[in-house]
Amino acid sequence: MPDDMARPLIRGRGEGRGSRCLEASMCDPDAPVIGIMGTGDFSRSLARRLVASGYQVVVGSRNPKCFIALFPEEVEVTSQMEAASQAELVFVAVFPEHHSTLVELKPALAGKTLIDVSNGIRINLDGPSNAELLADMFPESSVVKGFNTISAWTLQVGPRDGSRQVFLCSNSSSAKSSVTQLCRQMGFVPVDMGPLSSSLEIENLPLYLFPSWRVPVICTLGLFIIFYLYNFIHDVLHPFVTSGKNLFYKMPIEVVNVTLPSVALVMLSLVYLPGLLAACLQLWLGTKYKRFPDRLDRWLTRRKQLGLCSFLCATLHAVYSLCLPMRKSARFKLVNMAFKQVKEGVEDSWVDAEVWRMELYLSVGIMALGLLSLLAITSLPSVANTVNWREFSFIQSTLGYCALAMATLHTLLFGWNRAFDASQYHFYMPPTFALVLILPLIVLLGRLVLLLPCMSRELRKIRRGWEKTRHIRFTFPEVVSHV
Amino acid sequence: MPDDMARPLIRGRGEGRGSRCLEASMCDPDAPVIGIMGTGDFSRSLARRLVASGYQVVVGSRNPKCFIALFPEEVEVTSQMEAASQAELVFVAVFPEHHSTLVELKPALAGKTLIDVSNGIRINLDGPSNAELLADMFPESSVVKGFNTISAWTLQVGPRDGSRQVFLCSNSSSAKSSVTQLCRQMGFVPVDMGPLSSSLEIENLPLYLFPSWRVPVICTLGLFIIFYLYNFIHDVLHPFVTSGKNLFYKMPIEVVNVTLPSVALVMLSLVYLPGLLAACLQLWLGTKYKRFPDRLDRWLTRRKQLGLCSFLCATLHAVYSLCLPMRKSARFKLVNMAFKQVKEGVEDSWVDAEVWRMELYLSVGIMALGLLSLLAITSLPSVANTVNWREFSFIQSTLGYCALAMATLHTLLFGWNRAFDASQYHFYMPPTFALVLILPLIVLLGRLVLLLPCMSRELRKIRRGWEKTRHIRFTFPEVVSHV
Amino acid sequence: MPDDMARPLIRGRGEGRGSRCLEASMCDPDAPVIGIMGTGDFSRSLARRLVASGYQVVVGSRNPKCFIALFPEEVEVTSQMEAASQAELVFVAVFPEHHSTLVELKPALAGKTLIDVSNGIRINLDGPSNAELLADMFPESSVVKGFNTISAWTLQVGPRDGSRQVFLCSNSSSAKSSVTQLCRQMGFVPVDMGPLSSSLEIENLPLYLFPSWRVPVICTLGLFIIFYLYNFIHDVLHPFVTSGKNLFYKMPIEVVNVTLPSVALVMLSLVYLPGLLAACLQLWLGTKYKRFPDRLDRWLTRRKQLGLCSFLCATLHAVYSLCLPMRKSARFKLVNMAFKQVKEGVEDSWVDAEVWRMELYLSVGIMALGLLSLLAITSLPSVANTVNWREFSFIQSTLGYCALAMATLHTLLFGWNRAFDASQYHFYMPPTFALVLILPLIVLLGRLVLLLPCMSRELRKIRRGWEKTRHIRFTFPEVVSHV
Repeated sequence: MPDDMARPLIRGRGEGRGSRCLEASMCDPDAPVIGIMGTGDFSRSLARRLVASGYQVVVGSRNPKCFIALFPEEVEVTSQMEAASQAELVFVAVFPEHHSTLVELKPALAGKTLIDVSNGIRINLDGPSNAELLADMFPESSVVKGFNTISAWTLQVGPRDGSRQVFLCSNSSSAKSSVTQLCRQMGFVPVDMGPLSSSLEIENLPLYLFPSWRVPVICTLGLFIIFYLYNFIHDVLHPFVTSGKNLFYKMPIEVVNVTLPSVALVMLSLVYLPGLLAACLQLWLGTKYKRFPDRLDRWLTRRKQLGLCSFLCATLHAVYSLCLPMRKSARFKLVNMAFKQVKEGVEDSWVDAEVWRMELYLSVGIMALGLLSLLAITSLPSVANTVNWREFSFIQSTLGYCALAMATLHTLLFGWNRAFDASQYHFYMPPTFALVLILPLIVLLGRLVLLLPCMSRELRKIRRGWEKTRHIRFTFPEVVSHV
Repeated sequence: MPDDMARPLIRGRGEGRGSRCLEASMCDPDAPVIGIMGTGDFSRSLARRLVASGYQVVVGSRNPKCFIALFPEEVEVTSQMEAASQAELVFVAVFPEHHSTLVELKPALAGKTLIDVSNGIRINLDGPSNAELLADMFPESSVVKGFNTISAWTLQVGPRDGSRQVFLCSNSSSAKSSVTQLCRQMGFVPVDMGPLSSSLEIENLPLYLFPSWRVPVICTLGLFIIFYLYNFIHDVLHPFVTSGKNLFYKMPIEVVNVTLPSVALVMLSLVYLPGLLAACLQLWLGTKYKRFPDRLDRWLTRRKQLGLCSFLCATLHAVYSLCLPMRKSARFKLVNMAFKQVKEGVEDSWVDAEVWRMELYLSVGIMALGLLSLLAITSLPSVANTVNWREFSFIQSTLGYCALAMATLHTLLFGWNRAFDASQYHFYMPPTFALVLILPLIVLLGRLVLLLPCMSRELRKIRRGWEKTRHIRFTFPEVVSHV
Repeated sequence: MPDDMARPLIRGRGEGRGSRCLEASMCDPDAPVIGIMGTGDFSRSLARRLVASGYQVVVGSRNPKCFIALFPEEVEVTSQMEAASQAELVFVAVFPEHHSTLVELKPALAGKTLIDVSNGIRINLDGPSNAELLADMFPESSVVKGFNTISAWTLQVGPRDGSRQVFLCSNSSSAKSSVTQLCRQMGFVPVDMGPLSSSLEIENLPLYLFPSWRVPVICTLGLFIIFYLYNFIHDVLHPFVTSGKNLFYKMPIEVVNVTLPSVALVMLSLVYLPGLLAACLQLWLGTKYKRFPDRLDRWLTRRKQLGLCSFLCATLHAVYSLCLPMRKSARFKLVNMAFKQVKEGVEDSWVDAEVWRMELYLSVGIMALGLLSLLAITSLPSVANTVNWREFSFIQSTLGYCALAMATLHTLLFGWNRAFDASQYHFYMPPTFALVLILPLIVLLGRLVLLLPCMSRELRKIRRGWEKTRHIRFTFPEVVSHV
């Protein structure tokens, strides 16, 4: 699975096996000449791909003789000046810190298109980008940023698995359009990102580490730690302090298994809370054209990640729960219970309420997990791409609220009447399930209120574009909404 | 996850953050001018996307001054007449019920291309479509239907995740080809759907709610209800009526857990039955060129959905089963058993046949579920796209029949010799597993018959194009089959 | 799920329903004329698709009258000679063994482009390919290989689900470019595979049966059999031989459940071992430009498959483990234990060390499985396509090693102090967990050594292109690495 960087990507002349299709060149004399500056991994994979797509390739190097053996036969490896003068389109595959060494080629590159494929080493939010610096260095050439999100490996095996997008930007539309065409010819899907000022964004793309997951994951971990400590004090420390019972063996599994569903339920409410807040805000402001506060806006875009974190916790909760009867501790307890029953001569220890409580909350819990699984599967990109908007909103909104209602019911049934049982309040701390129920009950109640005919009618009007303040405009509506 | 409609999609001038790439325009004076009628969400997202793709955009509005602040700086917001006369391609982003208000623009729009992006409110099977009505209204313009399946949200963030297809149709091939090009330039994948009469189909696309799932889901629910009632009568009502035993606690879990595998097994047989029927029909008719009855044809296209419903039931059955020992009722029973054994002084209650039966059916059941999981994973669009036809048919046909055989064996082992035990026949009703086995055994037997050399040879011949009646034609075969 | 080959793909004139969009033709008189030789399933689906994409289609047949009813109205079905002379691009959809019957059309086809869509019956590694034979037969025509990976079914329903790639190759770049355009017009994604010599590879593509899975699956099965036999001897045969205990009931579940985690852990080590070996080799050679031995190279490319096999075993292990307390045998044992405890009058049989051991190894095991699940989900093509290289390597390398460490810890905790307990060594065979730990401990240790600052610095240098022997070259670095 890991470290493809460990592999030498390119094979020398005549070494290849199995990738015949890429090596055999068409040697079409009319094909345009593409130049590449630099002889690293990327440049070699690129050369190979270009040859396979029917282009003539000239590679410019300071030491052409050293590197000629690393390129396929059809590629001409020559001096940088020679390469620069032959090609119309030149890939700059040199480390950005060495861009300055190319300055002497300036006259040869004037009027030509330079494609900057470089990446940064760390995220750069302030600019200027490598591509912008290159453009400053070569004011007479047209600089196009692109291909930096493509790895040497993808270039070599070809863009077969899935549509590999290449993000392009440039200030020259003619240069961009010729690179767009080249890109398509190579089998990639070009995506126009506008002017060269977008290059900073494009250069940062391969450096991000799950930016959209940061807050949801921190949120999950934070809630986990808080609930774990709470449960530890409530279930382990309290009996130890008050009656000296040693229940520390509960820490790896039982305390975790009370914590996980709490996190899952709170996170699931957090998925549906921002939509509710947004609806209230829209109802209050009487328009959908006012921007939400920044925080709410970001919250709304993180709902998928929050939901998947909740699903992960719910699944782990299920697995932990299923493990419970397997444990030695459960077996010891059961055998000790049998011993006690025999000693006390109780023939049948059956308690109907206990049995019903458990059968019911297990059943409802499984259904909640089943619904959450459907939501999670529909979040997979390939599945999400095959459903239309109505189907997506049916699953994420209707089924999602069903899952939230089920999960809440699961917790309510688990609690049964114990929320009103004083013995559950250790150190005056209510049992966890009682705490955890507050948020989902608020969300469900809020949703029910919004479903009232008067509210939902108003909201639908607002979302179609109606405005409380200047509704005069709507004597002539000209809005097509696609949501 | 839900309700992206709650968010204000577009930001006004200078408000944007993080989407710099889309906002900064190239302001290329040579770029073609695209007109947009209407100023709603969709029109604003569209304007932004077009600007980012290097086009000049003119928006036509009745109240240009009210809306100018909602569009990016590079967009010209003007009167409808002005916009109509400047642009060659005009997007009509006005609610279809207000198309008629555009009639006064008829002379200005003559000879131009109108792109109708509107959607219906409910599925319309009889026509005419919005696009056809628009074409009737503007007989001198070329109407192209398209972009209605794209949401304002997708337009704004760009078609990055997955290849977003845009379905286009028109009676004018030149108009269609220019929209196709526009579409590609914007980063979408145009799909040509033929003449304008396809617009009805295209307008219905975003309104469907899982049409291919309707019958399989109804089928699953129907079977579930029937089997649940059967099992309820057999396992709960019968002991209550005959011996007054209160086993109603079994309703949420145990009865469900007998019902689910029954549904799963019957549904899995229903996946393989139509293929068998089709083969029989082909053998009987001696040709593959006769159409199947409509019902069989539809059944054949629903096999994936039937299979996934079966998989869902099987998974739920597994989870329910794993929950069994965790329940209070199981623990009470176990302790009571221990009590009884102690009272009766039985040192070892081990029954070898019972032990073997359970070890075997559990093991086979897990294997069946494992195979079904492989089938389900291969049904994911992104995985299905990476396998070739031979691999797909190996998994779905060979592994699928293995899974069916395993599941049948699981049920047979579960039944053991109890099908011949009169005490299992409550109210003269056979135990569920006996009923459930009929269909899969027929399917497996039928498949074995078709695997006989004489049958399979005949079938292979027919599927390569041979016909019993006019086989004279095959003195000169000219068929390439790709299956 | 299976056997779409069983369905008659094409409907005759006027029979269609629901696919109106494909049937209604544009009848554009300026559209180019495409010829098709042959009247089989493929040819009919192709004709339909071409018509829907706006082309005029002429089908050449020996018996035009017999087949005219099977094609849509817009298609002209005529003699082969007539079709050959009308069209510029001609699809050859005739079985390869009947290519020779087309020889009489040679003059009519001279200078035209022939598209060979044929497939082989079995994998052909030696050549020549069907397309090469066709090119030899028609030296004056330009032969393009392609569309053979597309099924008649995909042609008919259109390439809507996912980007369907069409692999093309030809020796004539102009012929290839016109087919590329045709391909794009039809909604497919053309992939240029170079000259006609690649046609062998393209013809083999639809015939492969999971070539990349063969070695990993054999590896998994081999390890499974070896460990199963070992465990059978150790846990079942030994007690039977030495003390006559009949434990054969353990064969279907308990022995399998000791075998599965062993296979999973060894396979997971095998995922990370080759990367380690590669790093050592690079450190030793002092360069990344030497090729790895072939075996290591192939091993490196199979890591994903090895990892998924490991994940499958781990998941099955989890399911088997969860089934343990449900079994009759577990219940009998528990009740017998209770009986014994009552007889012996032991009030509390609690053993703290036993309890802690189990709570800990279960908890760590669940976490290991959770991490492996994340790795598996990220291996799905659609998910892998949405993460950038840094994210991919974080998951596969960092999280992957965490999972390996967790799994090793799970096994260590399971072992506890029993590796030093002589009674575990039946027949002088150490318990399985002790054997299984060797490889992962080596891998983890090796990884730790490579993380030492001196080693990791050296390795990073080498992977950026530095070489021990000719580092003089790096006074002027010109390498851009994209890993």
